[in-house]
Amino acid sequence: MAKTNPGNFFEDFHVGQVLEHATPRTITEGDRALYGAIYPTRFAVPSSAAFAASVGLARHPVEELVAFHVAFGKTVPDVSLNAVANLGYAECRFHRPVHPGDTLRTRSEVIGLKQNSNGRSGVVYVRSTATDQEGRVALDWARWVMVHKRDPESPAPEAVVPELAPYVAAEDLVVPDGLDFTGYDTAAAGEPHRWADYEVGERIDHVDGVTLTEAEHMMATRLWQNTAKVHFNTEARPDGRRLVYGGHVISLARALSFNGLANAQLVAAINAGAHTAPAFAGDTVYAWSEVLDKAETAAPGVGALRLRLVATKGRDESMTLRGEDGKHAAGVLLDLDYWAFVPR
Amino acid sequence: MAKTNPGNFFEDFHVGQVLEHATPRTITEGDRALYGAIYPTRFAVPSSAAFAASVGLARHPVEELVAFHVAFGKTVPDVSLNAVANLGYAECRFHRPVHPGDTLRTRSEVIGLKQNSNGRSGVVYVRSTATDQEGRVALDWARWVMVHKRDPESPAPEAVVPELAPYVAAEDLVVPDGLDFTGYDTAAAGEPHRWADYEVGERIDHVDGVTLTEAEHMMATRLWQNTAKVHFNTEARPDGRRLVYGGHVISLARALSFNGLANAQLVAAINAGAHTAPAFAGDTVYAWSEVLDKAETAAPGVGALRLRLVATKGRDESMTLRGEDGKHAAGVLLDLDYWAFVPR
Amino acid sequence: MAKTNPGNFFEDFHVGQVLEHATPRTITEGDRALYGAIYPTRFAVPSSAAFAASVGLARHPVEELVAFHVAFGKTVPDVSLNAVANLGYAECRFHRPVHPGDTLRTRSEVIGLKQNSNGRSGVVYVRSTATDQEGRVALDWARWVMVHKRDPESPAPEAVVPELAPYVAAEDLVVPDGLDFTGYDTAAAGEPHRWADYEVGERIDHVDGVTLTEAEHMMATRLWQNTAKVHFNTEARPDGRRLVYGGHVISLARALSFNGLANAQLVAAINAGAHTAPAFAGDTVYAWSEVLDKAETAAPGVGALRLRLVATKGRDESMTLRGEDGKHAAGVLLDLDYWAFVPR
Repeated sequence: MAKTNPGNFFEDFHVGQVLEHATPRTITEGDRALYGAIYPTRFAVPSSAAFAASVGLARHPVEELVAFHVAFGKTVPDVSLNAVANLGYAECRFHRPVHPGDTLRTRSEVIGLKQNSNGRSGVVYVRSTATDQEGRVALDWARWVMVHKRDPESPAPEAVVPELAPYVAAEDLVVPDGLDFTGYDTAAAGEPHRWADYEVGERIDHVDGVTLTEAEHMMATRLWQNTAKVHFNTEARPDGRRLVYGGHVISLARALSFNGLANAQLVAAINAGAHTAPAFAGDTVYAWSEVLDKAETAAPGVGALRLRLVATKGRDESMTLRGEDGKHAAGVLLDLDYWAFVPR
Repeated sequence: MAKTNPGNFFEDFHVGQVLEHATPRTITEGDRALYGAIYPTRFAVPSSAAFAASVGLARHPVEELVAFHVAFGKTVPDVSLNAVANLGYAECRFHRPVHPGDTLRTRSEVIGLKQNSNGRSGVVYVRSTATDQEGRVALDWARWVMVHKRDPESPAPEAVVPELAPYVAAEDLVVPDGLDFTGYDTAAAGEPHRWADYEVGERIDHVDGVTLTEAEHMMATRLWQNTAKVHFNTEARPDGRRLVYGGHVISLARALSFNGLANAQLVAAINAGAHTAPAFAGDTVYAWSEVLDKAETAAPGVGALRLRLVATKGRDESMTLRGEDGKHAAGVLLDLDYWAFVPR
Repeated sequence: MAKTNPGNFFEDFHVGQVLEHATPRTITEGDRALYGAIYPTRFAVPSSAAFAASVGLARHPVEELVAFHVAFGKTVPDVSLNAVANLGYAECRFHRPVHPGDTLRTRSEVIGLKQNSNGRSGVVYVRSTATDQEGRVALDWARWVMVHKRDPESPAPEAVVPELAPYVAAEDLVVPDGLDFTGYDTAAAGEPHRWADYEVGERIDHVDGVTLTEAEHMMATRLWQNTAKVHFNTEARPDGRRLVYGGHVISLARALSFNGLANAQLVAAINAGAHTAPAFAGDTVYAWSEVLDKAETAAPGVGALRLRLVATKGRDESMTLRGEDGKHAAGVLLDLDYWAFVPR
């Protein structure tokens, strides 16, 4: 009797199926420190308990992406161990801040299935929900991945493709309890620009770059208990290279965006995300952002910006997303669409 | 007057000698996070405070190997700074879980001495005991190392070779206070297999591999305040390579064993251990296990498995421990014999 | 409107100007663990909460250099983003221990300006003060850096060069509240030598060496939210090498000095410091110390040693600071002058 987890293949999924993912994980102050050691992040709320208190938060939350990576990592052994590709995210909302001491667990429901025409793989759509130790929802999101079939001869399931919103509506964003930016200290936060200073269509070159190392991306990925082999094992890929976890690029780009978006303090939602090219140790990653939309919220002093965050290999001062063929331009590693809360 | 510690040589030890090792060390949540960043561990008890509470533990312990490495590291400056080789362990028992906030210190007693026939070195046997800030024993173990003589001409001491048990008897295992596996949640733990599902003689290929980096093994070894030069300094060995601390391979193999032994939640004892070949950055480490024995315990729902944990350089699906010459097969890095508590 | 921070140029500073630096930062137990993973530190006070309590400290402080790096990192975006060179430190005093949970912020005042004769850059002198969440001073220091001018044609300011003490006077050292070394446990601390055992002029070879890696120095530097590009980006320097942050060498040398100065428990002041040569991954760093002065304090059992701490690339058993030309000898990376508290 084999005891090791072979992961699920396309045939193992059916619409409506619920997957209770393993290994709940308690967030600690150690996670905050490691996140700060691995990414050049300086956002004042997660950096400073005193600043967090000054904007009305009862406790000192970790970055939303810490919660995202932990919650996401839980799904890998059941959803994407046999994935060919991670195709996209949608409708990711952060429902409440996560703090040291909170324990996250994740469950997923299969919401769609579509076999590929080649018969060797198919697309699996899941909606995943991470809850804390009290059973309160911390975040949820939809995701779709291309998964190998175990047997190409097995019959195709009825195709079900869920309708997913192109982006989270501004009125569906959840402002953390108590958040109040009316006394926001821009000097402490590191930048004078507020919600009104950003214009839709504006692009911001974040200027700084970071060269990736093997040790750092593996430590980050392990921290989230993400077990996908290709990130850790030079013998798992024909080219002998360790593929950097896509979430590592997201966190790195988000941290780099501090320089120009220091007041985009909290990630409210992730609308969409595409990992458009692989990243490897030795690559130097830069980022630029585009303001896609703006919205007000009911919370005092709190506005929202919808931002495109683009990570590139090598700096692209032209901030070009698409090449001449309409596909992502060479060097683009990540194209992420998200909402952030900023002071008005 | 030289102020630096030259370490002890074979002549400096005598049977009955007690060594109070320096630098007590407080365990923190930072240690838990770093352990999880460096090793791909996902065991539910150390991962989740909520899971630990659900199995009756009053507080959230760190992995037993965190305590082992910290306690062991303390002995290095006094016992093995001038060691030629770390020859073995025996009779290592974990007497109580260790939690963030606990401070460990270690003392050792010399329990045996035997000069080698070449007259240039000898074997030193010590029994080491780590206690917490209340003076309670957290773990103890025996260990023997080959140590250089300062002067080959110095006389040999009377040979004393202690009798050490080949393995800890099942009835001597200490179940942590309150541990109760009767409500054990296998879905949360990540695997359905319980004590009854494992058979003596069964071998489990843990499948996954991790490629070592210099930064990670040095960070781990430093975290335990283990100061042996060969792990940190390319100028300390003629080949200019940093030798990976043997305990790093133990922790890595233990973490890899999650895939097939996710319910072997707690390490209860280490019966024996041999580091059969050196490991270096760039090596890809895999692991397999063999079930050596099974035992019941008096605690509700708690069984014990005696396991052989073998780490290899490169995957060995044949799970061969011995080569044709009866010695450890090529590629075997570690041969560890331990007891773990599993749900019945 | 450019949103990114271009940093200040020489023309942007004026004497008397106050800079409120951004991103207050809360210290955590994660910082202690990471510090211990990155540097081979074993000083008993920061290592052990029990030891700290035994010498009269009400809480368990982190190493003074953790506070120094965090506080210093805050100043980089405003003071030295366009620096050609970090010329020196003076008058750095630690006013109170820093503990997990404390939030540090830093402000600087410009205390001097002197344009260089080439007209392309100038020296900026600042005095920086880090305060905790209660507004209490944790540490302060003076520093001077050479900064580019934006426009070589802009007029030179009136030269103001502050008078800075060559070293902090012993009577100005601040002993932490409650510190009492009368019951000091040398066995736990790891070394028998006390204040009386050290002689002015004595040199101590710390023997051990550590080979630098890219991942470790970047993680350390990021942990302090130090954003200077040259440490992170292989594309930021013509030679494609990442320059190791000078503070990384300070912390590494201080940790190495444990072997011979284990009882120099607490850093009381930094009198002066020069980074005399760049360090890079692959370099093996060693350290030696010279006792420059001794002083008593009013606190029970507490003495002070003024120490020169020298880091070298490759071991220099001759402990030579100056070459034949009177300049720093080849291989000298750091020449640091500091005060430490030691048991009498």
